[in-house]
Amino acid sequence: MDSVSGRYTCLNMNYLLLIMIHIGVGLHAVGGVWPMPQISASSPEQYPLNPEAFYFEYGRQSEAQPGCSVLDAAFKRYFSLIFPDYFPGDNLSVCAGQASLKAETVWGFFVNKTDIEDFPRFQFRGILLDTSRHYLPVQAILKTLDAMAYSKFNVFHWHIVDDPSFPYQSQTFPDLSAKGAFHPMTHIYTQTDVQRVISYARLRGIRVLPEFDSPGHTQSWGKGQSDLLTPCYKGGTPSGAFGPVNPTLPSTYQFIARLFKEVSSVFPDSYIHLGGDEVNFFCWKSNPDVRAFMQKMGFGTDFTKLEAFYMESIVNITSTLNKTAIVWQDVFDYHERIPEDTVLHIWKGVPYDYTKELSRITKAGKRVVLAAPWYINHIAYGQDWRKSYTVQPLNFSGTEEQKKLVIGGEVCMWGEYVDATNLTPRLWPRASAAAERLWSDEKQTSSVEKAFPRLQDFRCKLLRRGIQAEPLYVGHCRHEYQGI
Amino acid sequence: MDSVSGRYTCLNMNYLLLIMIHIGVGLHAVGGVWPMPQISASSPEQYPLNPEAFYFEYGRQSEAQPGCSVLDAAFKRYFSLIFPDYFPGDNLSVCAGQASLKAETVWGFFVNKTDIEDFPRFQFRGILLDTSRHYLPVQAILKTLDAMAYSKFNVFHWHIVDDPSFPYQSQTFPDLSAKGAFHPMTHIYTQTDVQRVISYARLRGIRVLPEFDSPGHTQSWGKGQSDLLTPCYKGGTPSGAFGPVNPTLPSTYQFIARLFKEVSSVFPDSYIHLGGDEVNFFCWKSNPDVRAFMQKMGFGTDFTKLEAFYMESIVNITSTLNKTAIVWQDVFDYHERIPEDTVLHIWKGVPYDYTKELSRITKAGKRVVLAAPWYINHIAYGQDWRKSYTVQPLNFSGTEEQKKLVIGGEVCMWGEYVDATNLTPRLWPRASAAAERLWSDEKQTSSVEKAFPRLQDFRCKLLRRGIQAEPLYVGHCRHEYQGI
Repeated sequence: MDSVSGRYTCLNMNYLLLIMIHIGVGLHAVGGVWPMPQISASSPEQYPLNPEAFYFEYGRQSEAQPGCSVLDAAFKRYFSLIFPDYFPGDNLSVCAGQASLKAETVWGFFVNKTDIEDFPRFQFRGILLDTSRHYLPVQAILKTLDAMAYSKFNVFHWHIVDDPSFPYQSQTFPDLSAKGAFHPMTHIYTQTDVQRVISYARLRGIRVLPEFDSPGHTQSWGKGQSDLLTPCYKGGTPSGAFGPVNPTLPSTYQFIARLFKEVSSVFPDSYIHLGGDEVNFFCWKSNPDVRAFMQKMGFGTDFTKLEAFYMESIVNITSTLNKTAIVWQDVFDYHERIPEDTVLHIWKGVPYDYTKELSRITKAGKRVVLAAPWYINHIAYGQDWRKSYTVQPLNFSGTEEQKKLVIGGEVCMWGEYVDATNLTPRLWPRASAAAERLWSDEKQTSSVEKAFPRLQDFRCKLLRRGIQAEPLYVGHCRHEYQGI
Repeated sequence: MDSVSGRYTCLNMNYLLLIMIHIGVGLHAVGGVWPMPQISASSPEQYPLNPEAFYFEYGRQSEAQPGCSVLDAAFKRYFSLIFPDYFPGDNLSVCAGQASLKAETVWGFFVNKTDIEDFPRFQFRGILLDTSRHYLPVQAILKTLDAMAYSKFNVFHWHIVDDPSFPYQSQTFPDLSAKGAFHPMTHIYTQTDVQRVISYARLRGIRVLPEFDSPGHTQSWGKGQSDLLTPCYKGGTPSGAFGPVNPTLPSTYQFIARLFKEVSSVFPDSYIHLGGDEVNFFCWKSNPDVRAFMQKMGFGTDFTKLEAFYMESIVNITSTLNKTAIVWQDVFDYHERIPEDTVLHIWKGVPYDYTKELSRITKAGKRVVLAAPWYINHIAYGQDWRKSYTVQPLNFSGTEEQKKLVIGGEVCMWGEYVDATNLTPRLWPRASAAAERLWSDEKQTSSVEKAFPRLQDFRCKLLRRGIQAEPLYVGHCRHEYQGI
């Protein structure tokens, strides 16, 4: 997942944005920037920070040049963040008749001359939101995208549907949300909503990676699509309950192909997440048609082969749509024959064994995204951000080539206990700890103690920018009650 | 702490409010009321719920009669909660020219005839907020008072000052907040703020119990009051650090007397919380003047005697101000001679040993408030409200007389990791679990499983009333996104 790809033709943004953010902190030391830049040099030389004279410039060597819509919009946003109170003409009225008051002294900010060279350590820096266990209003998603950009996350992994509800309003299969959402009108994402999220994210340098998890985690799909799920049997007759997607019927693959064709065109990203986790074989085992299919296919009683058969089929469907698949590691664990470029998403092995998972899967030459140590929905009393911060994603047994296969990491906010009432303070600034781990040089950011005051500053900055980030410990911010 | 006392002359409110709240749930079963009423009988007989014909009535036998400002205001508030969309005349315009549309059917609500007799199990049902570790804006406190009333909490224990900051703006000693608050102008409670909180609480049947914790937990006091704290020594000379309040100087008691005189008049409640917890003797031991005082008083090297001396003195000061003291259990643990009516606040013995504390202290004839199992600032992943719910406050070894000394319980939200960004979703609906334990009959509410759907309903009701209460588990409420 390169930072320049797909439709993001002028997306060298990360480099430029860092410089802007840095200027934004004004009087703070360089140490106050979060995540820590790769290379930064301050000199005692000072410059006035004057909004009348301040401007952003495209680098002469940059691929991005004037007219790049993403950067043009970013310049506007960050100007307001740096000079929140500035309105053109303000200083003139203040100065009327007072020639001695120059623009510089009206504002009174000086910044040390600072050169920053910056680039991300990992190309994939994601946050997962789960909009199935609880519906999240579009506003809550946009707010999260704002905060993600401030921490330099660049992938919004949208776990949009799951067992409890199907809020995605499909054009091809409108019954999926009409019957599978918590509410068919208020708890759905219309095509307009989805486009709004994608375009808001794009302007902030964030890709939207949609997940349509199957064959498990699909209870809500069954409500609007009959014959999709496997009927479970009890004592020789259907029990009325349904299990995972039925992998034995051609109609299943026709449905998936049509759904994914739509999804592929709605979501422009070159990746699509196919899920594939936690498939319970209980229902498949109970169903005589499934058992007959197993015999026919020569799978014996090994249901992992049936799961592999299903996953291979849908990965192949996405390949024909020119999308690269990301799947949860379960798919690798069952040894499916999956395309070389499929990315494995590591979620097992918490708290410490995920290093084994990293070794094992990269040894097979697969690219991986590490999520296991960053299941941020799990909360604990106290400063649990420290645990997220001390993760060393490359500290596993393997060759240099294997290490290169770790393309990044992801903070997962599963939705069992989270909705719009508590999402923001539970996510921020805790997720920012992982953000620095994924962006910055590990040696320069090895001390949790040194990170603490910098993260406190950053949390205050989030508050000032309207993100209701929770406190890390006793204390206060200068500007903490705007709008609360 | 009787429900009818002090200035609360018409505060038989709890009985009346319950009836109103019940009507408020309208079509829900009686089982949907939280906390569960003591006695409730529904019949199949139905009545239309018509705002044009609906009114609250003072009971003929009630101590409270028309003109009671608390109830008159409550009637107004609860009318709006029951009929949020009603505006007089609405139905007339809807009905213009349509004689067949009667008021009843415009609204279309019917309620089953229900008789409720209700009263609280415990008279003290408190919530502690800590405004020293983080400052809480007055709005956040008022919002909490709203939510407290919905859960029938009746004591706001305002842990207003502590080590980190002194936000109470004293008339007598303005330097305490001018120098001891996080910010002397923005992070303080003015006298107007305090009056606003008290009066807002009073109208909701909630007493305000202020805590000025000493002799420990007073670092912030020392900034605005020189010579109050004990200078710590290192190697025979003052180290520059300060310890607890200096109990050896007459000026200390003069200061406390003047401060408490003011506090007693500002806060009308008949109780005052004096703290007395977690006194660290290290600094006292280091100070030669303190050691000399110990010799003179015959305390030897037993610093608990010095602490006892201090606490006895300040408890006596509050007695002369006609206030009854509440203190943390540490004060009992050091065997101070404290007035018979002093209430001990139990916070030790978590998770299970607090029953021993209850036995021990009630055996000495002291009244107690139980806080130990309800330190709600401690969070854990999942449904931790279940632990709060299954507490049995009277399940300890002791006589019937001892059990009567348990006057109630308190949910404590200490502020290390909590400020206005996360207070509401962290407090609600988790605190409501304790609320039912303190209000309702224990036998009728012994099943956590039965409580669960009722608490989910109640959480949705909190959302509808504008309290950003977090979800208990997967799902949704009908009206969850107003204002988010």
